[in-house]
Amino acid sequence: MQKRRFIEKKLRFVFESYGYHEIQTPTFENLELFTAKSGEGIINELYSFTDKGNRELALRPELTAPVMRLYVENLQMKAKPLKLFYFGNCYRYDRPQKGRYREFTQAGCELIGTDSSEAIAELISMAYQLLHKLSLQNITLEIGNLRLLSLLFNYLGLNDDQRSQLIPLIDKDEYEEVRSLLDSFALDDTKTQWFLDVLQIQDINILTTALSSVKEVSEHLTRMQEICSFLDIHLDDFPYRINLGIVRGLDYYTGVVFEMKAPSLGAEKQILGGGEYDLISLFGGRALPTAGFALGFDRTLLAMDEEHILFPQSSLDYYVIPITSEMREQAFKVCRILRNQGFLVDVDLMRRGIGKSLKYANNQNARFALLIGPDEFEKGFLILRDMQQGTQEELTYKELSSLRKIPK
Amino acid sequence: MQKRRFIEKKLRFVFESYGYHEIQTPTFENLELFTAKSGEGIINELYSFTDKGNRELALRPELTAPVMRLYVENLQMKAKPLKLFYFGNCYRYDRPQKGRYREFTQAGCELIGTDSSEAIAELISMAYQLLHKLSLQNITLEIGNLRLLSLLFNYLGLNDDQRSQLIPLIDKDEYEEVRSLLDSFALDDTKTQWFLDVLQIQDINILTTALSSVKEVSEHLTRMQEICSFLDIHLDDFPYRINLGIVRGLDYYTGVVFEMKAPSLGAEKQILGGGEYDLISLFGGRALPTAGFALGFDRTLLAMDEEHILFPQSSLDYYVIPITSEMREQAFKVCRILRNQGFLVDVDLMRRGIGKSLKYANNQNARFALLIGPDEFEKGFLILRDMQQGTQEELTYKELSSLRKIPK
Repeated sequence: MQKRRFIEKKLRFVFESYGYHEIQTPTFENLELFTAKSGEGIINELYSFTDKGNRELALRPELTAPVMRLYVENLQMKAKPLKLFYFGNCYRYDRPQKGRYREFTQAGCELIGTDSSEAIAELISMAYQLLHKLSLQNITLEIGNLRLLSLLFNYLGLNDDQRSQLIPLIDKDEYEEVRSLLDSFALDDTKTQWFLDVLQIQDINILTTALSSVKEVSEHLTRMQEICSFLDIHLDDFPYRINLGIVRGLDYYTGVVFEMKAPSLGAEKQILGGGEYDLISLFGGRALPTAGFALGFDRTLLAMDEEHILFPQSSLDYYVIPITSEMREQAFKVCRILRNQGFLVDVDLMRRGIGKSLKYANNQNARFALLIGPDEFEKGFLILRDMQQGTQEELTYKELSSLRKIPK
Repeated sequence: MQKRRFIEKKLRFVFESYGYHEIQTPTFENLELFTAKSGEGIINELYSFTDKGNRELALRPELTAPVMRLYVENLQMKAKPLKLFYFGNCYRYDRPQKGRYREFTQAGCELIGTDSSEAIAELISMAYQLLHKLSLQNITLEIGNLRLLSLLFNYLGLNDDQRSQLIPLIDKDEYEEVRSLLDSFALDDTKTQWFLDVLQIQDINILTTALSSVKEVSEHLTRMQEICSFLDIHLDDFPYRINLGIVRGLDYYTGVVFEMKAPSLGAEKQILGGGEYDLISLFGGRALPTAGFALGFDRTLLAMDEEHILFPQSSLDYYVIPITSEMREQAFKVCRILRNQGFLVDVDLMRRGIGKSLKYANNQNARFALLIGPDEFEKGFLILRDMQQGTQEELTYKELSSLRKIPK
């Protein structure tokens, strides 16, 4: 929990530094909210149930639909752009494995009301900053564009059925299968090879050259270039990549999409994903450009552990030990003084002897023990024991009252 | 959410300053965990459902049973005492009203392994400190003892059936009905009056005198006195009250019980409740003394609002406005500098004019606007506008880089 709260605090600070506002939605929603977004098939992956009022409910599998439902119901009148972020537990009836749990935590955000290049670039840069501020090094950022991909499909003359056969293969990076499928569509060899080459391009300038002859995509290509040049300002020299092969399984994305991965996690390496989408009109609101992303909290923590990132520890400052039963009230007074000064303080509540108390203090990782004995009390001091060094010194009550702690 | 996060941070700090460790448990548990604790009747108040693996599950209605389940399964070998605290959402199929929601947040703690007087006093004092540190003034603390009450029932010669008729009336403070019921049990008038008087006693010394002749209670009375004298150290002059009439609805409490109320909230005024209980042996663990309490997060927030307590606001520090389209990249660089310095910064993403941008900055409660124009840029400065005063001044890039913020 200390690690989780540390991550949460860091992420919250990044969201807020970009002008985002935190929101919360209920743990369960009407089932139809999720079937409207993702189709009836999603019911198999959901915890859904009928409540005592005969409503079909579902524990939320993700937070974008709930947030957009909240937007349509309550926030449409707010000034735009509206920048919202959240932390929330989500639930999927899935086979549990490392980095994939039935209950998991997502952090994420939605940007409502603008699709300017700088807006999308800022969103992607914030995604990068979230992981960067957690000290993660071994991460990748890839940016795709479903609108561009769709225009390329047009250019290749593929029909809807052909596209839906192709997309899962592209999603899984199975390029040999993509080639065979395109061959089976009787696409000419040059075009097939050209398309496969385009899918491999990782640089916006090379992409621009490669697509220069396809005038149908020029508008969206220019937008991608703009986004990339804004991104360059934000990301320093972080080597993000263009990848037109990102299709993100979900079918509600409409334009730019992006993913961040921690390759150290193996099969479950994706830790962040998002893009431009439209849900507002589906939920009955006035259509506006929207984009957002979600970050898998549990996988992020796993990725940090893989990189052996050390978290700041918050351990006990003082463990107070009354040496005799008469000193118990005195020990409580000392606790009170120290807690009021902002220290983390515990005290023997088991009426143990000094030896066992010191052992417990050690077990609790206390930095100091404070021993309160009747003789010392009479003379006006306590014994301060450094638990790491094993050294002891006398501490007057005046010194006790002037102990200070540097706030985190 | 700003208010909620502020409260959470304050509460967490108090728990930690008493040496408590945060834990988290799943949102749902096996249904039988809650029926084992509270009887089959609780099913009517629960969100329960059968999952795809045919398990009977329930969204947790409270967190004590889950925490004790976790303790029995995973934490029994930890050094004692074990001090645990939590924040978590809970769910009850209840009629929603002010301060009573179907999904609500609880904060709470469990102390496992000791029932010394100082341990119980520390627990109660922490409950007080949690509300005190939130600046709540109009609150009450009442302490009862179900063991003492039960011994008094013995002394009065009441059988189990008579007790279970009596307890709900005592719970609701319906003393006239208590009197009639005791009369109907053919209890002698002097004893009835004496018992009713004892229920009214609010001071431990008066209680001691009143019960001095009942030697069956002397051991537990002495313990209550000890607890109160430890409490006096912790609570300064806060006027807590003894109330033997606290029965706390739940039947698993075994000794001291306590409640804190915010009378300003009317019918739903209880904001904290707890006491000594036993669940470990029920869940198959090795029995140990346990005590804890839970605080209603939503009601606490309502009580703070009733007292018009002002929360610290975290609003935007700078809103950055590029005056021309050529200045957009420059605006992004300025954002980056300021965010790296720890400021909360937003920037025009809608390509609005200055007037509309300033209006939005105002709407977002920004303290300053930073206007970036091409002429000023060439001369090496920006325009800093104080949004409250309406004044403007020039800021060089060097000054921009040296802007600092006092951390909260």
